[in-house]
Amino acid sequence: MKFTKMQGLGNDYVYVNCFEETVKDPKRTAVLVSDRHFGIGADGLILIQPSDIADCRMDMYNMDGSRGAMCGNGIRCVGKYAYDHHIADKTKISVETLSGVKHLEIKAVNGKAQAVTVDMGKPVITSDLPEEIVAEGTRYEFTGISMGNPHAVVFMDAIEELDLKQIGPGFEMHLRFPDRTNTEFVQVIDRTRIKMRVWERGSGETMACGTGACAAAVACVLAGYTQNRVQVDLLGGTLDITWDREKDTVYMTGPAVEVFSGEWDDRAD
Amino acid sequence: MKFTKMQGLGNDYVYVNCFEETVKDPKRTAVLVSDRHFGIGADGLILIQPSDIADCRMDMYNMDGSRGAMCGNGIRCVGKYAYDHHIADKTKISVETLSGVKHLEIKAVNGKAQAVTVDMGKPVITSDLPEEIVAEGTRYEFTGISMGNPHAVVFMDAIEELDLKQIGPGFEMHLRFPDRTNTEFVQVIDRTRIKMRVWERGSGETMACGTGACAAAVACVLAGYTQNRVQVDLLGGTLDITWDREKDTVYMTGPAVEVFSGEWDDRAD
Repeated sequence: MKFTKMQGLGNDYVYVNCFEETVKDPKRTAVLVSDRHFGIGADGLILIQPSDIADCRMDMYNMDGSRGAMCGNGIRCVGKYAYDHHIADKTKISVETLSGVKHLEIKAVNGKAQAVTVDMGKPVITSDLPEEIVAEGTRYEFTGISMGNPHAVVFMDAIEELDLKQIGPGFEMHLRFPDRTNTEFVQVIDRTRIKMRVWERGSGETMACGTGACAAAVACVLAGYTQNRVQVDLLGGTLDITWDREKDTVYMTGPAVEVFSGEWDDRAD
Repeated sequence: MKFTKMQGLGNDYVYVNCFEETVKDPKRTAVLVSDRHFGIGADGLILIQPSDIADCRMDMYNMDGSRGAMCGNGIRCVGKYAYDHHIADKTKISVETLSGVKHLEIKAVNGKAQAVTVDMGKPVITSDLPEEIVAEGTRYEFTGISMGNPHAVVFMDAIEELDLKQIGPGFEMHLRFPDRTNTEFVQVIDRTRIKMRVWERGSGETMACGTGACAAAVACVLAGYTQNRVQVDLLGGTLDITWDREKDTVYMTGPAVEVFSGEWDDRAD
């Protein structure tokens, strides 16, 4: 099986071009290839499939073999792959996902995608502005934003010093969030730039979360801290987020990188 | 740059055949390719080079770019690569390392190396038998064995339950070991089988340590717990260790696996 390893802000998947390859048992293959010592090493497996309703379909499997619906860092890489490898020879690309069809715009340099913008859809406010919560014995204020998945955005200073392993589960498992929540700890730098760390439900602290960056930007605009377009610095790199208030949709722009290509022997699959 | 990812007991390196490829700046390349999210992902980089005094030379670089002298899991993979890819078309292969020339024997099935035996050299006893030590406020008995690098072997029950992050540094940094030490926590199953966990100096707990398995087996024989040949179960898999008392050398046999091959674009190097 030929594959390409790609990453967006360090969120890395094994990508297989299923216009040319077939993966018989993707759940099992996802577990095998994701292992960072015995396999290829990745956060999961993404199959780029033909689609009846879009330019291609993104079939996403997490490292434990479970299905993933949508991943902002992953879909940018799908867009880059589709553009660079001529699956879709145009700068506006549609991708079918389990969360619906997503629309991407490619910024290309010398025929290769350098950055990809994704229309992440409409943000939905899910809390008072702000709402109070007590987690692990401490009182916090948060803004609840859904980007299809739930987020709690907390503003604070000196986020580098936070013990997220201590605080994150207090939000994730709080009775206020029956479906659990992702939590963003956001430090405002100025009206155009914020820093954030993210605790993802089920995963713990991660280097980057695309929907979390969108939720954080929306919360900053609502609080009057920033303009509608803001650079979001995450551990894994920087995203450019714009909340288009007229269309009421959030655009996320960020890097997508092809790291290496290889051949995986299916003997063990 | 073409590369092959190989692993022995989960100890994984990026291998480059330098009979065919050139790596200009191996320290920098080691750092780049080892990164598990932005690179290929590995414990380091091993270049398989021509040698004037052996069938090939193993140039080893750790993930931080520093030189490594010798690695039992790594050299088995070098042996497999040299055999499978016809660098040395024979089952007895010599490999030059910074710790001298090592002698390997290949066990092949259908023209491919399945297991590799390495002559790990003479064990040197470096402690009383046993010696007492107080680490982190608890009294332990250990056997000190050098396999070129220092080891402290501690016998105990229920090693699964050990909090190695707590205990390991107490040995590693103890004044008794001015050069620091690797420490093996060993549970004897029967006269032919032991289980162990290892705390490696500078690395913390690892899935497997070849020299540590050799030291543990020698300590077991000295204590009368096992015969001269013993299976050592580590977190990453099993090694077969034989202390040949006549030749006073230790033979380590274990798996070596080619995981995938790929192409790394040197643009960033």
